[in-house]
Amino acid sequence: MSSNTDTELLYVIKIGGNIVDNPIVLTQFLQSFTLIKAKVVLVHGGGKIATQLAKDLNIPQQLVEGRRITDAETLKIVTMVYAGLINKNIVAQLQSMGIQAMGLSGADANLIKSHKRSSESIDYGFVGDVDAVNTGLMDNLLKENISVVIAPITHDGNGQLLNTNADTIAQSIATAMSAKYKVHLIYGFEKEGVLLDVNEPNSVIKHINKEKYQSLKEEKVIFEGMLPKIDNAFLALNNGVSSVIIGKAEKLNELINGTAGTTITQS
Amino acid sequence: MSSNTDTELLYVIKIGGNIVDNPIVLTQFLQSFTLIKAKVVLVHGGGKIATQLAKDLNIPQQLVEGRRITDAETLKIVTMVYAGLINKNIVAQLQSMGIQAMGLSGADANLIKSHKRSSESIDYGFVGDVDAVNTGLMDNLLKENISVVIAPITHDGNGQLLNTNADTIAQSIATAMSAKYKVHLIYGFEKEGVLLDVNEPNSVIKHINKEKYQSLKEEKVIFEGMLPKIDNAFLALNNGVSSVIIGKAEKLNELINGTAGTTITQS
Repeated sequence: MSSNTDTELLYVIKIGGNIVDNPIVLTQFLQSFTLIKAKVVLVHGGGKIATQLAKDLNIPQQLVEGRRITDAETLKIVTMVYAGLINKNIVAQLQSMGIQAMGLSGADANLIKSHKRSSESIDYGFVGDVDAVNTGLMDNLLKENISVVIAPITHDGNGQLLNTNADTIAQSIATAMSAKYKVHLIYGFEKEGVLLDVNEPNSVIKHINKEKYQSLKEEKVIFEGMLPKIDNAFLALNNGVSSVIIGKAEKLNELINGTAGTTITQS
Repeated sequence: MSSNTDTELLYVIKIGGNIVDNPIVLTQFLQSFTLIKAKVVLVHGGGKIATQLAKDLNIPQQLVEGRRITDAETLKIVTMVYAGLINKNIVAQLQSMGIQAMGLSGADANLIKSHKRSSESIDYGFVGDVDAVNTGLMDNLLKENISVVIAPITHDGNGQLLNTNADTIAQSIATAMSAKYKVHLIYGFEKEGVLLDVNEPNSVIKHINKEKYQSLKEEKVIFEGMLPKIDNAFLALNNGVSSVIIGKAEKLNELINGTAGTTITQS
């Protein structure tokens, strides 16, 4: 957006469960994270640790239409694993690399307020949909050169913690912060980017804009799982985010300088 | 200390495991917490949830001379339970009561740096002894009227999280912050205070100073478990803390106004 041309850069980076689950890849990612010369917010997903812990504790995991139902016991598990184990280990690693990282959940300082998802057909349990980001607090932390590391747990303001999709959290933060910063939203995952051929890891589409996306959809070359991700990307772009970059998490620096991954912009 | 007479008040409050374990008492405590008209840091202990989780996961808990050994698996558990489950639930509750609470571990923003305890006789495992408190960061948060809620997990600066005694954390923070604030250190637990007769819950000693403590020790009226707590209190008082108050957590407001509990001062 032209109004953001002179404003400061902010990278909102999301890493998925596959990165969190793999200590070697996670460390590679965190090392490239330390090289970023701008303000950063890192949102991490959950990974398999919570599923394994539920299994070890004999807490049955209910899936409806491929989505996990968060009952009271499962909420305890994800709060422990996401906001405790994963978040604090990422923070401790970043601190050892000289980064002033601070790990927060959405409940902390009312950073991300949400409401319990209500659905006519399916009760997802303690799952939150984001309502608001505390941009003032976030901005204060960033101004103190703190790298904020966010676990995908939010709260409803009435004392209830809620399990919340990390992609959505990253997008909500990116969108909200774009009022003050020139924001690039980065989705780091295990693939090289948006692929022309799902069986060909190197068939990365380097750049997608609205027209290109339209024609890719018509040609049906983008595989199904990627469609909601790109739809979300355009939602972020329509709401002030400068670009959305999708690619391999451990190639973070190349994603930022444009030599790897898929960059999505409006035009 | 006379140099602190005109400086701002700070309450550093520690609540033990017995408070954390009891949802009704915890909520009562948090409600009185909201009435404090000063800056506050809350340090919480662990409670029985971690022990129960270890049991449910068949992770044997090793005790040597009454102290728990923190092996790698136990460290994961306490990180999940203390920094995740307990910390975030306290924060969400305080937020619902209108308090701008933020939950942190010692790793976050390098708030509490420690080193792994080394002992000639016993290997305590991943247990930390406190080296330094990031008073500048803490002060910045307090100035933004954030109530800081601290889980008893610290880090060594090299990426290692460490299980750390909550009493010691509270004392370290109180001592470090007394350079800038007039600090009252409050230990909230399940008893009314320091008792003259351990079997008589209402035999609270209202005030203890150095001379009184000396005579109480000589008369052997203070029961054994209380001695290290009071020794620690005098250590804090010798290092700038204005007073140490010990008593029932849910009587927090009475502890502060001096109508309940035991107040310990130097003279």
